[in-house]
Amino acid sequence: MYRTNTCGELRISDKGKTVTLAGWVQRVRKLGGMTFVDLRDRYGITQLAFDEAKNKELSDQAQKLGREYVIQVTGLVEERASKNSKIPTGDVEIIASELNILNTSDVPPFTIEDETDGGDDLRMKYRYLDLRRNAVRRNLELRNQLTFLVRDFLVKRNFIETETPCLINSTPEGARDFVVPSRMNPGEFYALPQSPQLFKQLLMVAGFDRYFQIVKCFRDEDLRADRQPEFTQIDCEMSFVKQPDVIGLFEELIKYVFSTIKSIDFNEPFLQMTWHDAMRLYGSDKPDMRFGMTFVEITDIVKNRDFNVFNTAAYVGGICAEGCASYSRKDLDALTDFVKRPQVGAAGLVYVKYNADGTFKSSVDKFYNQDDLKAWAEKFNAKPGDLMLILSGSDVQKTQIQLGQLRLEMGDRLGLRDNTKYAPLWVVDFPMFEWDEESSRFKAMHHPFTSPKAEDLQYLESEPGRVRADAYDFVLNGVEVGGGSVRIHDRNLQSRVFKAIGLTEEEANSKFGWLLTAFKYGAPPHAGLAFGLDRMVSLLAGLDSIRDCIAFPKNNAGRDVMISAPSVIDQSQLDELCISLNVPEKDK
Amino acid sequence: MYRTNTCGELRISDKGKTVTLAGWVQRVRKLGGMTFVDLRDRYGITQLAFDEAKNKELSDQAQKLGREYVIQVTGLVEERASKNSKIPTGDVEIIASELNILNTSDVPPFTIEDETDGGDDLRMKYRYLDLRRNAVRRNLELRNQLTFLVRDFLVKRNFIETETPCLINSTPEGARDFVVPSRMNPGEFYALPQSPQLFKQLLMVAGFDRYFQIVKCFRDEDLRADRQPEFTQIDCEMSFVKQPDVIGLFEELIKYVFSTIKSIDFNEPFLQMTWHDAMRLYGSDKPDMRFGMTFVEITDIVKNRDFNVFNTAAYVGGICAEGCASYSRKDLDALTDFVKRPQVGAAGLVYVKYNADGTFKSSVDKFYNQDDLKAWAEKFNAKPGDLMLILSGSDVQKTQIQLGQLRLEMGDRLGLRDNTKYAPLWVVDFPMFEWDEESSRFKAMHHPFTSPKAEDLQYLESEPGRVRADAYDFVLNGVEVGGGSVRIHDRNLQSRVFKAIGLTEEEANSKFGWLLTAFKYGAPPHAGLAFGLDRMVSLLAGLDSIRDCIAFPKNNAGRDVMISAPSVIDQSQLDELCISLNVPEKDK
Repeated sequence: MYRTNTCGELRISDKGKTVTLAGWVQRVRKLGGMTFVDLRDRYGITQLAFDEAKNKELSDQAQKLGREYVIQVTGLVEERASKNSKIPTGDVEIIASELNILNTSDVPPFTIEDETDGGDDLRMKYRYLDLRRNAVRRNLELRNQLTFLVRDFLVKRNFIETETPCLINSTPEGARDFVVPSRMNPGEFYALPQSPQLFKQLLMVAGFDRYFQIVKCFRDEDLRADRQPEFTQIDCEMSFVKQPDVIGLFEELIKYVFSTIKSIDFNEPFLQMTWHDAMRLYGSDKPDMRFGMTFVEITDIVKNRDFNVFNTAAYVGGICAEGCASYSRKDLDALTDFVKRPQVGAAGLVYVKYNADGTFKSSVDKFYNQDDLKAWAEKFNAKPGDLMLILSGSDVQKTQIQLGQLRLEMGDRLGLRDNTKYAPLWVVDFPMFEWDEESSRFKAMHHPFTSPKAEDLQYLESEPGRVRADAYDFVLNGVEVGGGSVRIHDRNLQSRVFKAIGLTEEEANSKFGWLLTAFKYGAPPHAGLAFGLDRMVSLLAGLDSIRDCIAFPKNNAGRDVMISAPSVIDQSQLDELCISLNVPEKDK
Repeated sequence: MYRTNTCGELRISDKGKTVTLAGWVQRVRKLGGMTFVDLRDRYGITQLAFDEAKNKELSDQAQKLGREYVIQVTGLVEERASKNSKIPTGDVEIIASELNILNTSDVPPFTIEDETDGGDDLRMKYRYLDLRRNAVRRNLELRNQLTFLVRDFLVKRNFIETETPCLINSTPEGARDFVVPSRMNPGEFYALPQSPQLFKQLLMVAGFDRYFQIVKCFRDEDLRADRQPEFTQIDCEMSFVKQPDVIGLFEELIKYVFSTIKSIDFNEPFLQMTWHDAMRLYGSDKPDMRFGMTFVEITDIVKNRDFNVFNTAAYVGGICAEGCASYSRKDLDALTDFVKRPQVGAAGLVYVKYNADGTFKSSVDKFYNQDDLKAWAEKFNAKPGDLMLILSGSDVQKTQIQLGQLRLEMGDRLGLRDNTKYAPLWVVDFPMFEWDEESSRFKAMHHPFTSPKAEDLQYLESEPGRVRADAYDFVLNGVEVGGGSVRIHDRNLQSRVFKAIGLTEEEANSKFGWLLTAFKYGAPPHAGLAFGLDRMVSLLAGLDSIRDCIAFPKNNAGRDVMISAPSVIDQSQLDELCISLNVPEKDK
């Protein structure tokens, strides 16, 4: 061992001990005849003192130490003359008697400080230096703590962590698979799993009863800020349970995690909201519940005036922004621009200011008189000083989604989305199917193994759009952190659902035949859930992106810029795999 | 919840309670007017009783239950008339009052019993049924218990479990990589990691200090019984430590695992043996220490007779098989055939029987007299009744390896390799390099990031074959369960080692440039180790193969026969990836 103690360990009670520390040079200061070195490791920082008067040679050596040199120092623990109350070791310093340079360091490309001068690209290229920063390392420590807590919680409740295979089959449902050519089976490919969904269902058929796995999953999608081609799920499944059992147990898990990691105790059951209400009141299937500003629909009281936009609209509704009647023309123009952005896609924004003096000023004064607007305000429960923001459209759901985005924008503007606050929510009763314009057929909203609600089975063939599923999402601060469902365990029902999404019996058999076969041999009722670990860590860490909760993330082009992956491979490798490249000239 | 209790839970103290159980029908028996059903779940078996006299309809229903039906039963816990002391629930039965068939089952293709009539192929095809068998499920439970213990042990010692990426670069060193075409970077490929070796070293450069990960790794190798294309490692790395620190800590871990899981306490430090001694005494770098039968070399006392085979041999040595002087001609022929098998490759076998009457009978009586053989027997420490088995050859190491295989064969024949006994061993001081005939160059025996021993650095350029490494393997019962090394943390030494294995500076930079760059910024001294989880579980479970420690293993052709992976993918997928197939006619 190169050390007797870590750099975060020594206290005044260790005074008089001779110790050996090892770590990185954070900084070197010279004060008269004394040279001070801040020595850093993962556990903290300890001050080393070199006295020129006592040992000139050693002191000279210390002065020459560069930033991030790796050194080993032996010396006596002494009380500091000027203590530093900001760090736990701040009462002591080491009077160095031996110094051993274990490794030198070039000047790092950015400073290893909580606030660094390194940009994103540089930090990612030298990620091993970035990870030396407390701010980043702490996220990874939090991730480790979280997974440990989750395992402890689940194992104590008889869950068996079971590894499912990583080299599986490509399935045409869902997102795009990463595939792996098989050398031993030329012309055939494995696929990397998008989730262990079917394997965990087979484990239920196998009688495993309570399964979990913290597992890497893969999706070859075009990336966004909070997406990575490889991501990690806390994946769970249980037998002989119904929806409330699953929600109850995992709500307990979430509460345990928050209590242990954040000292936040949720004493009430988490709110549950139907998907329909979430869309109606928040325009989102993952509403941010840290603030209210729920939708007020006024479709039926705005008709019969000369305002054609409202008259022809299937939906007219809005939100009430408290105290925002003072918004300037410029503010309102900015909001109008916001809703008209292609990402939002609204045609325009109607505002109504409820002035402090009780009068109204709106963008539709031409069509609606003060009494009209007062009636609206009553619907909105608005007070003088408030601002009503109203959208309308011919497609109810699309308009609600636009309004939902405006709500979030207002939440941001008003500082209502505080990263230190947590508002958990279960969204339940999702529709079983959604209409897919592209393929002109219904597709499963969660996945086709989700159980329709018993009372809606009657509409499975006649009105698929009306069928709700026993599916649930766990939403935290407007982020979908987890999701799951009761699964189908009946072979016939599974066939009916496959048919409803347009799979012929033949297709269903060729794609999921092994699952249907498994269902023939006594599949128990089962249900499950998966949490996104990366998102859960980022929320607990109060971060906006998942990037810094992952040790070695990839950029938006799916590249690891540190090791420069992916890369070309040898022709001999291609030959062994019996594949050849076919890259169009423009992509070369 | 479909149940109030599990099938392994009820005891005589529960008598009088009304309970609901759910599970699988193990068997149905009719005894007079009574029908008994053994109901099974993961936790055990509980007997259900249906009385025809009390409820004819329910009793009739029970009689019609098929094997592996999934049912839910409500009833009263009663004391059994004839108790079954073999199962924990054997004192009670449930007097059923309600029966609900949750799912039917076809007759399973093999019996769900500890001893099944299903062959390997059938079991793998219906793995979800195979996993219902206690014998298989228990291995997976053991695996879960082991990983939980390991995590608990390491996290308590400040190790941070950190996920390293699964989509990395193909590296030409080592075994063959699985590769993954990148859609977003046409013509380029990710590779799946054979181990997180370089990433864990970067985590040490990052100051993570103590890292571990239980992680899937991938190797595209031709498979053998104990190899899988995807396997799991317990992967660890530590900074500021030396070889004894790593060995000490992980020996503690192994002892903790054995004490907790097997109630076996190793009170002494594990034996450590140099690689050289392991080869000299056991002809293996992973000797099975459950029995002795160490080699005796007699090269120098067999010369100067007319036996040319020995006269020209570089090595003559053997083992002494206690009490085997009575071996018949047939036994000895079988052993001769064994050593002459191509997998062993010896030219022949010399035997010397030390008869009970003190005389000797050997296959070389023509060349050696009784005094000669007596001198050999003294060297072998043989007693009357023993059998000496001797091999010779021109290549010392090859002959030792052949003799090592004979030793294991004798161990098997004499029942000395008992699966319930555990003999741990650290093999240390491995050679740094081994000569690769094929490429006519030295290659790293562990990997090129292993640190040569300080005292052997002087031979790095002049006599690479003489350089030993700070590398160590953990061997249990003749199986290499773990291995690791002190790593190089000095950029210059790393360059010298790359050069020794024939990598030019340019090649080294193109392949490992990012590692060499990382070493410029203050890499600490570090060392690590990885255990093969699959092998560790199989040893703890007393199994010969790793297959049944894996929930969904692949067969020797790398196929998952249950889901039939790998498989062909759509042309559209190939097109998106800019690759085309090139399968020779014969492989189609």
